[in-house]
Amino acid sequence: MAKINFCTQCAHRVDFLIPADDSRPRAICPNCKHIQYSNPKLVVGCLLTHQGKILLCQRDIEPRINYWTLPAGYMENRESTLEGALREAKEEACAVGENMRLFAIYDLPRISHVYMLYVGDLAQGEAKAGDETKAIALLEESEIPWSEMAFSVMTEALQRYFEDRKNGELNIHRATFEGQPGEEATIIRDWPQ
Amino acid sequence: MAKINFCTQCAHRVDFLIPADDSRPRAICPNCKHIQYSNPKLVVGCLLTHQGKILLCQRDIEPRINYWTLPAGYMENRESTLEGALREAKEEACAVGENMRLFAIYDLPRISHVYMLYVGDLAQGEAKAGDETKAIALLEESEIPWSEMAFSVMTEALQRYFEDRKNGELNIHRATFEGQPGEEATIIRDWPQ
Repeated sequence: MAKINFCTQCAHRVDFLIPADDSRPRAICPNCKHIQYSNPKLVVGCLLTHQGKILLCQRDIEPRINYWTLPAGYMENRESTLEGALREAKEEACAVGENMRLFAIYDLPRISHVYMLYVGDLAQGEAKAGDETKAIALLEESEIPWSEMAFSVMTEALQRYFEDRKNGELNIHRATFEGQPGEEATIIRDWPQ
Repeated sequence: MAKINFCTQCAHRVDFLIPADDSRPRAICPNCKHIQYSNPKLVVGCLLTHQGKILLCQRDIEPRINYWTLPAGYMENRESTLEGALREAKEEACAVGENMRLFAIYDLPRISHVYMLYVGDLAQGEAKAGDETKAIALLEESEIPWSEMAFSVMTEALQRYFEDRKNGELNIHRATFEGQPGEEATIIRDWPQ
């Protein structure tokens, strides 16, 4: 996130001060008194399957260009987390998700992100690369390119999914990814207990 | 959310245009090319109990001043959803939460909010009003001031909690609150199924 230098309302240079009723420094405009907050972002995405195979996307944009991921991206205003997840599947893989249910909620405090991933069916088994995607693939568990996955959250979600599938019951999974950006994360799983 | 008028990086007036690789209008600076995104916010909070009683807070700030709520507020950068929920309990009710688990995930697309509420024990049964709270109360189910609740998400969470408690099993609950701001929401519950 870029540091805030100027007020979005009046263009005056902002100060970083702790407001009277607050406990953290905020970007405050000394001219118009507007406070510009910065908050965590939600990333929403889908694990879509067809005849047991998983839809993966090879990224055509940075970060992690050429690596593989589940279709996902930043949630937009005025949509639900599910609508956002389905939109990302459409944008990145021209894919329609059906029979969706919440599967994973991951906290990444080190980068101020919260992931919400849904699992469901890939309609008609149809997908093709969207604008930010180099290639898509429908892969068996044995074909997942584990060493070429873009993000550890997606690796974690896939592993839990295959585990659940073997056990015959899909759970909701919750974990916190701890550690500093750039380092390998420590995954604290707290659900299912 | 206030409309963005000026660039946070260089103070130039922004345009609202759809970037080449995007599908929605964004606040774009024609001078330095910075794009200022606006995204949904996470609200995190706690349902804390002591000897079967529920901790509620009477709000001392707008919106919905004087009405009752569970301690909750905007998630901050570099914290997990659980850390945020515990922080809010501390700030609003000087309360320490223990044995916490995720209880409810609510989408409010009409105001671009996502709620994540945790349930747990109120340590030592101790709480008192924080800065933004007029009064706190530890209430039996029969004492909940249903008609004086500040937000329909909290009413929904409390109702589901009491239902689960009667059934002897706490679930994770998911719902989307649909409709326009200012109107009564239509609650679409999709988990548990």
